[in-house]
Amino acid sequence: MPLNSDQTRERIVTAAARLFYNEGIRAASVDAIAEKAGVTKKTLYYHFRSKDELIAAYLESRDQPTLDLYARWFDETPGSATDKVRGLFAEFARATDTVKWKGCGFLRTAAELANTPGHPALKAGAAHKKRFEAWLADALARERISNAKAAARSIVVLLDGAASVMLVHRDPAYVLAAGSVAASLVELPRAAAAE
Amino acid sequence: MPLNSDQTRERIVTAAARLFYNEGIRAASVDAIAEKAGVTKKTLYYHFRSKDELIAAYLESRDQPTLDLYARWFDETPGSATDKVRGLFAEFARATDTVKWKGCGFLRTAAELANTPGHPALKAGAAHKKRFEAWLADALARERISNAKAAARSIVVLLDGAASVMLVHRDPAYVLAAGSVAASLVELPRAAAAE
Repeated sequence: MPLNSDQTRERIVTAAARLFYNEGIRAASVDAIAEKAGVTKKTLYYHFRSKDELIAAYLESRDQPTLDLYARWFDETPGSATDKVRGLFAEFARATDTVKWKGCGFLRTAAELANTPGHPALKAGAAHKKRFEAWLADALARERISNAKAAARSIVVLLDGAASVMLVHRDPAYVLAAGSVAASLVELPRAAAAE
Repeated sequence: MPLNSDQTRERIVTAAARLFYNEGIRAASVDAIAEKAGVTKKTLYYHFRSKDELIAAYLESRDQPTLDLYARWFDETPGSATDKVRGLFAEFARATDTVKWKGCGFLRTAAELANTPGHPALKAGAAHKKRFEAWLADALARERISNAKAAARSIVVLLDGAASVMLVHRDPAYVLAAGSVAASLVELPRAAAAE
């Protein structure tokens, strides 16, 4: 049964995501992506006008799954908001302590595209990071944290820092140290703190 | 007067540093670097066996100047260690809030080389980050901070996080928020805290 247009598009994005993440934005060629997706270059360019558009589509495809993963880590950690924030970093430390992990795809793409301001993938990456920060602020507010917004802002810096340092040193101790700082930033509601 | 061998090498590294930083490791070609340095490719390859070696030399050339810059920011900020840590981030926020700034060269290189473990430039970058952390721990210890080592470890995560987020959002508010957290991590010696 031939693939319909949506399925073909998805297949191209999946192949692009894998190659862009594993090899880098510039290193992965459109030829290699088309081959991996099992489509002709003509078909690829029917769905995406340019490689730049495909890079943006790659990051857009990682937006919701990334949010879902962190939301699961947060929700599934038992205890107070402090515990949940610490749990987020503990899960992140575990997930990143493998050879397969090659950094945060959003940050690596921003690094590779640093000389092309206005690139559609930079916009997609910035939109994701804003959504992530808003999700975390909401999650903390639902836990009745009084400084949810300010805490979320500092915690995303710690998370991105942890991802960056992890790529340099491959040492989860930095991620756990960042998690302790992040947990200390959360101001528990008075009743909970007294419990 | 013809350049001697050391001067030629330095000229190549300077040209490489500029192109690698401005365009990216993979985007900048050896041809472009040789041309910018005003040498033939043969001369370039006499000094560096490979592009990989040249990438490592670029990061090594940025090690001491980067340490010197942060040491100056730290030393020249008046006040307590808390003020100095906050000052470090304030200076960083100013320095990075320009179009010319394109991220931390060490982190961007690690991002581009994520799929080549053991690359000499990854080693040079990791060595720099370790030296930076050791410098900061020493600087805090000289200010009689009781938790100098632990504070330095968390502060480098915040600094790398600030650099990463700055590249994504180009908003110094994140850097300043990270600076407040960093300042709060420093445990002042008792006498100073009471002053």
